[in-house]
Amino acid sequence: MSKPARLSGFPEWLPAERLVENHVIDILRRTFELHGYAPLHTRAVEPLSRLAKNGEIDKEIFTVGRLSAGEAESKNPLGLHFDLTVPLARFVTENAGRLDFPFKRYQIQPVWRGERPQDGRFREFIQADIDVIGDGALPEHYETEVALVIAKAFEALRPLGLPPATILVNNRRLIEGFARGAGLEDVPAVLRSLDKLDKIGPDRVHELLLAEAGADDRQARLCLALAAIESEDDGFVEQVRALGVSHPMLDEGLEQLARLVRAAAERAPGTVRAQLKIARGLDYYTGTVYETVLHGHEDLGSVASGGRYDSLASLGSRTFPGVGFSLGLSRLLSRLIGPEGLRASRKVPAAVLVAVTDEESRPAADRAADALRARGIPAEVSPDAAKFGKQIKYADRRGIPFVWFPGTGLAGEVKDIRSGEQSGADAGSWEPPAEDLWPRVVGGAPSHPVGRQ
Amino acid sequence: MSKPARLSGFPEWLPAERLVENHVIDILRRTFELHGYAPLHTRAVEPLSRLAKNGEIDKEIFTVGRLSAGEAESKNPLGLHFDLTVPLARFVTENAGRLDFPFKRYQIQPVWRGERPQDGRFREFIQADIDVIGDGALPEHYETEVALVIAKAFEALRPLGLPPATILVNNRRLIEGFARGAGLEDVPAVLRSLDKLDKIGPDRVHELLLAEAGADDRQARLCLALAAIESEDDGFVEQVRALGVSHPMLDEGLEQLARLVRAAAERAPGTVRAQLKIARGLDYYTGTVYETVLHGHEDLGSVASGGRYDSLASLGSRTFPGVGFSLGLSRLLSRLIGPEGLRASRKVPAAVLVAVTDEESRPAADRAADALRARGIPAEVSPDAAKFGKQIKYADRRGIPFVWFPGTGLAGEVKDIRSGEQSGADAGSWEPPAEDLWPRVVGGAPSHPVGRQ
Repeated sequence: MSKPARLSGFPEWLPAERLVENHVIDILRRTFELHGYAPLHTRAVEPLSRLAKNGEIDKEIFTVGRLSAGEAESKNPLGLHFDLTVPLARFVTENAGRLDFPFKRYQIQPVWRGERPQDGRFREFIQADIDVIGDGALPEHYETEVALVIAKAFEALRPLGLPPATILVNNRRLIEGFARGAGLEDVPAVLRSLDKLDKIGPDRVHELLLAEAGADDRQARLCLALAAIESEDDGFVEQVRALGVSHPMLDEGLEQLARLVRAAAERAPGTVRAQLKIARGLDYYTGTVYETVLHGHEDLGSVASGGRYDSLASLGSRTFPGVGFSLGLSRLLSRLIGPEGLRASRKVPAAVLVAVTDEESRPAADRAADALRARGIPAEVSPDAAKFGKQIKYADRRGIPFVWFPGTGLAGEVKDIRSGEQSGADAGSWEPPAEDLWPRVVGGAPSHPVGRQ
Repeated sequence: MSKPARLSGFPEWLPAERLVENHVIDILRRTFELHGYAPLHTRAVEPLSRLAKNGEIDKEIFTVGRLSAGEAESKNPLGLHFDLTVPLARFVTENAGRLDFPFKRYQIQPVWRGERPQDGRFREFIQADIDVIGDGALPEHYETEVALVIAKAFEALRPLGLPPATILVNNRRLIEGFARGAGLEDVPAVLRSLDKLDKIGPDRVHELLLAEAGADDRQARLCLALAAIESEDDGFVEQVRALGVSHPMLDEGLEQLARLVRAAAERAPGTVRAQLKIARGLDYYTGTVYETVLHGHEDLGSVASGGRYDSLASLGSRTFPGVGFSLGLSRLLSRLIGPEGLRASRKVPAAVLVAVTDEESRPAADRAADALRARGIPAEVSPDAAKFGKQIKYADRRGIPFVWFPGTGLAGEVKDIRSGEQSGADAGSWEPPAEDLWPRVVGGAPSHPVGRQ
């Protein structure tokens, strides 16, 4: 086989890093399931027509075909999903008769985008999504719920050494009402301009508003003044009112956002913050929008984003409004996993390496290993009957803490290769210390076991 | 959105079915990790050149492109992997300097094949693989190990109601040596013909051997006599010898297979069976080959297959021989999940629905739910303050066993909606019975909790 060339934008973890990723996925699953979200896994491909936005196929979409495509396939070309929201909308309309609404699901899968790869941006990456979908209507309190579930997920990751996260909220109707109240009609252009604030700064956004949103100087100043407002409580309402813009849709957006911020502050003070510059690029959002920043990693951008969408899915006149979050797992872990960050306490699951004296006695080593595994202790057997020193080195290189030397039956000797301590033990009853049973995630704060219990 | 059309060959589970699939995946993960296999997750795409077999791109391969592909991409076209073995070989050569050998890994991911969809055959399906890769050499005992780990995995699934599984083994060198000893030189054609035995029967395989492998009547009879041999112990050796064919490679294959069958019988009697008709289509196998049949589901074909491959991966003169298994998770579950088979005891993770008296008191309901979740009890809060009868119906439809009626603080009443029994309880201390905590897999034999512990 020829020399391998890495594919840019398609990162892969070494097994010791994948141990950490699996552990993080397990924590997310548990958090989502504790809140009643059911698991979903959708196919990787969708008809290209479904992946199109406003009838146009985005250049970032990966198409899927076959060298010898049949007629049916040529008529219905496929692409890889670029998020988990579009597949969800399709799944809901396809299975509406078999689902119970409101439908709460989580989904942790790879998605694909043909973007230019850069720090934290990949072409294949794992997203962890939660959404609540209603049939016809969806109560507003779910907008608080999804934000707090995501906050709980980040909280559950804190013991691994994750910094605190803040969920930033805004409301599309608030921005749209404000823009209209200020006399601006091209709302998408206003949103697009404000969305660039963090990247290009207020002066250049001011220019953009003039050039692309048809704003005059006063209107651009007003938009930038709005975008500068933020508060942990509903204090933002007064600040917006002070700008002197009024519109019924603005009132509606202010009230919605105030209710969300108050409800969140009551249940989880300090978690959610109104920040009126949050715009979100995706045009299917119709109300509340969310972003999430990790303290000290603000440059990474949002690690969990989402919003309310009222018209993503429908069957004839029947609509399925929804609200949800996408947590960028790969982006998060690209920053956190590494020699200076999170890593597994060992490279393999095994807590014990069973040594082999000679190949004739391998069955005895296998029996000892099986006895340990039967009691939930991960074990592997030495690849060969090399000198014990070499077998200990095999364990040491992988971080396996214990080496077992089989004796008669299940009796043997067990050596903690870190301390060098060795003592007699029985494979039918010996237990490693609980903290050594499974690899742990280390490198951040207190370490946590990686394996399942 | 237009009316959805299902894509043939891309099955998706409803959440209650995905709960079962997740539970099965957890059992496989635990089994593999208990045996020291480390997790790996590779990207979905590979360069087409790597997916080619003998320089030819199979028609079944899905290609991946972009509408606006850059020059670099056009020069290096991509495809979706059709198995997890080719990506493993590529990963090993790419990361040889960072891995410890023998390298033991498991991998549970979707793969894609543009086959004609039929019962148990899909275009996107999940495989669960284990492999051991050596650097230069790989001891033969790993051929026994991987078979017994897969046997353990099926054994671990038995309590869910899975029938027993038998692992069928053969050896490529045995067949090749036998064919050569019988005077047949086109060994691939012999393998291809024998591989069709179960599908078309001995008479038509006889014809095939004549027409395509250049066999005369005596040679074809010999091959069919070989293919009819099977035994649970090393008795097959005598039966092959009795056919009067001899060749050094046949001796070698017979000895290898006999050692494997004996070692497996010693550790796990009745699990592994020599069956000399097993050929395996994939041409990278060089020694032992495996298939697995589920008792009573023989028509489904092999649910876990694999073998030894000595030359799949190499870096210059450095080779990485391996041995492994692919368990066809989707194929297995397509047969087992369903109204008559395995299903989750409820459709959602929540054990408790917290009722809402009126929207003003929703915060009290949220507090009760949070108190339950903090102690690991999955709970959701009622979507609205409908009449309690309607809220109980909400729980009933999803199979949620308990409804919580909040009182003052964390005090409340909890109702088991199956028995109708209701009593006072505190959300800070009440526990559901252990068997109700998480959804269980039911429908087969004794039921098992689906959630993580």
